[in-house]
Amino acid sequence: MAFGWIDEQADLRRRAGLVRTLRPRAADAPLLDLASNDYLGLARHPEVTEGAARAARTWGGGATGSRLVTGTTELHAELERELAGFCGFEAALVFSSGYAANLAAVTALAPHGSLIVSDAGNHASLIDGCRLARATTRVTAHADPDAVRKALDAHDGPAVAVSDTVFSVDGDAAPLAALAEACREHGAGLVLDDAHGLGVLGDGGRGGPHAAGIAGADDVVVTVTLSKSLGSQGGAVLGPARVIEHLVNAARTFIFDTGLAPAAAGAALAALRLLRREPGRAARAGEVARELHTRLTAAGLGAVRPDAAVVSVRAPSPEQAVRWAADCRAAGLSVGCFRPPSVPDGISRLRLTARADLSGAEIERAVRVIGETRP
Amino acid sequence: MAFGWIDEQADLRRRAGLVRTLRPRAADAPLLDLASNDYLGLARHPEVTEGAARAARTWGGGATGSRLVTGTTELHAELERELAGFCGFEAALVFSSGYAANLAAVTALAPHGSLIVSDAGNHASLIDGCRLARATTRVTAHADPDAVRKALDAHDGPAVAVSDTVFSVDGDAAPLAALAEACREHGAGLVLDDAHGLGVLGDGGRGGPHAAGIAGADDVVVTVTLSKSLGSQGGAVLGPARVIEHLVNAARTFIFDTGLAPAAAGAALAALRLLRREPGRAARAGEVARELHTRLTAAGLGAVRPDAAVVSVRAPSPEQAVRWAADCRAAGLSVGCFRPPSVPDGISRLRLTARADLSGAEIERAVRVIGETRP
Ligand SMILES: Cc1ncc(COP(=O)(O)O)c(C=O)c1O
Ligand SMILES: Cc1ncc(COP(=O)(O)O)c(C=O)c1O
Repeated sequence: MAFGWIDEQADLRRRAGLVRTLRPRAADAPLLDLASNDYLGLARHPEVTEGAARAARTWGGGATGSRLVTGTTELHAELERELAGFCGFEAALVFSSGYAANLAAVTALAPHGSLIVSDAGNHASLIDGCRLARATTRVTAHADPDAVRKALDAHDGPAVAVSDTVFSVDGDAAPLAALAEACREHGAGLVLDDAHGLGVLGDGGRGGPHAAGIAGADDVVVTVTLSKSLGSQGGAVLGPARVIEHLVNAARTFIFDTGLAPAAAGAALAALRLLRREPGRAARAGEVARELHTRLTAAGLGAVRPDAAVVSVRAPSPEQAVRWAADCRAAGLSVGCFRPPSVPDGISRLRLTARADLSGAEIERAVRVIGETRP
Repeated sequence: MAFGWIDEQADLRRRAGLVRTLRPRAADAPLLDLASNDYLGLARHPEVTEGAARAARTWGGGATGSRLVTGTTELHAELERELAGFCGFEAALVFSSGYAANLAAVTALAPHGSLIVSDAGNHASLIDGCRLARATTRVTAHADPDAVRKALDAHDGPAVAVSDTVFSVDGDAAPLAALAEACREHGAGLVLDDAHGLGVLGDGGRGGPHAAGIAGADDVVVTVTLSKSLGSQGGAVLGPARVIEHLVNAARTFIFDTGLAPAAAGAALAALRLLRREPGRAARAGEVARELHTRLTAAGLGAVRPDAAVVSVRAPSPEQAVRWAADCRAAGLSVGCFRPPSVPDGISRLRLTARADLSGAEIERAVRVIGETRP
């Protein structure tokens, strides 16, 4: 029978304690949220939701076509200008998701015969980009610029190194300046995914590359998502205008995808303007993360020191991670639970996210619940 | 220098007349639109834009996380239930785009060692799905069930055939019943992309698989987009509940992507309900397409007979296609222009789309402009 093998896989998953199920949430869920990627607490900010509503009314429910046909509105162009300016790049190109932006950047910047040097901790979307690209991929040890240098040494011809700026599982930062130096020595490009850096790192949330002083360099291309700090949906590639022009002409997830919905563009633009006006939100997200880490550590929990707004806490097993997260939820706290195959090292974790708008009392309550429910 | 090869490619493109540029449109563009995929004219319908606005206000600007963490709202679940019910399937899973839905369906349903039989005219997102999958892909002649049968004959083990229901470039339909029969004979699954069928084909717009009597079969999986007839953004996979459960656990573009923005889910749900209430819109889109074709043919233009709402008109060369589309635009008519590398056969075309809300006078004017500007 067609798809018969699916049942065997489902069985294996069940026995390994790795079944995933969807849990639809209500609009007024009473849980304290340390699970979302809404780092600045903007997803439900009235300016952001009004930005979405106004854009839908003005431009329609959808973009109605590929960005190359009818799918580019003046709103998309405005968002691209402001995003590029904010993050310190010449140009930007908006996609329907950060995933699509990563597929585009990696595939279009790694032509046949070229080399991709990819960090072992990179996000699934960068890995899929490597798999789709016509280039050869070499995976290097996590956050290791010397390994990148060695891989580039061994190759002749076009090359790019690809890395998250902040790794999504443990929240640790990549050594951006050293990576940029290694690439520059070899005439290689650097593609950085700042999904978890934008809005949190850098002056007023301008992102990891801006903080490292490499934003706007002619050999650096950055991808971002509009779905985390900016509280919306979508993604973007930032870089030199010639690279952006190249993507318009060559990136399949740009050419063959419907443009981002106006409401998502409008929400992201409103969030970006809010962040410009209230730059303190960015630093606050980092402070909350560090405070969470300090208190978790004081409570004897094995948390990874955060470089941005993600705080990862190790769990003894997938089953115990699931139970721990469920016990937290029963106590009114929503936390993420990362298990294989979503973790590169096979270690299950609770994944906590800091939000700029968490109060001291909320932080305290979260740490107390996590401590009391530990396996 | 990093990315130096980009300038050479840009040069080649310029000389071949294949440069693509973005043309941001205004909210009140006065052009007659025969270029968008807004087949039912719903993208700017007040119920649809209010659906988006209300969802943004109720649920926020973004879903705030992966569908597996915080990104599933009751609105997503509602949309999934209604979409599945409308199209005649047991279950549905909503994605951030139709592109992501296609990557998910193909990669997750074609495991290592299996065979994918893929139509030569398939959409880029299905092709990328084949490239990403761990299976072997065999590309078969366009719309040829015997070729599919032969490819399946030659393989032992799990297999799927993959096809658009309506091909995006020429608007011709795939032989769905014959494909389903070929697959069933071999115990193979059938994955169909109904991006251009939903809302246009089948009883009240229930889609191509419904029209062919294969919706809800346990060996048929269908992907749709929310960005065309439903006037929004996003995609979905429809199929047996066990297949949908498998995708929740295995599809990377589901697990590692932020959930669809509430506004997009709200707009799509409003459009779906409107279509249920006004089922005549679906048939009308097809009628407009056939009328366009009849009139274009009467005017001596080489148009492909439409099976859904896309009408393709051949152009002598890429340059002339571009000029033709520009001349149409100068005369107040927006039409699509498809050139290499976006056409599988290398032939440039004007791509016209019918909309259910085009009036007789508008159809007449469109045909007149296309005739008067022909190269
Ligand atoms: C590091 C990283 N890159 C890219 C993405 C994908 O972005 P999006 O959800 O906007 O598709 C994510 C998470 O969703 C991420 O964590
Ligand atoms: C046949 C087909 N499948 C899939 C897609 C992708 O859908 P989406 O634009 O929602 O990503 C498109 C067009 O965009 C298409 O034409």
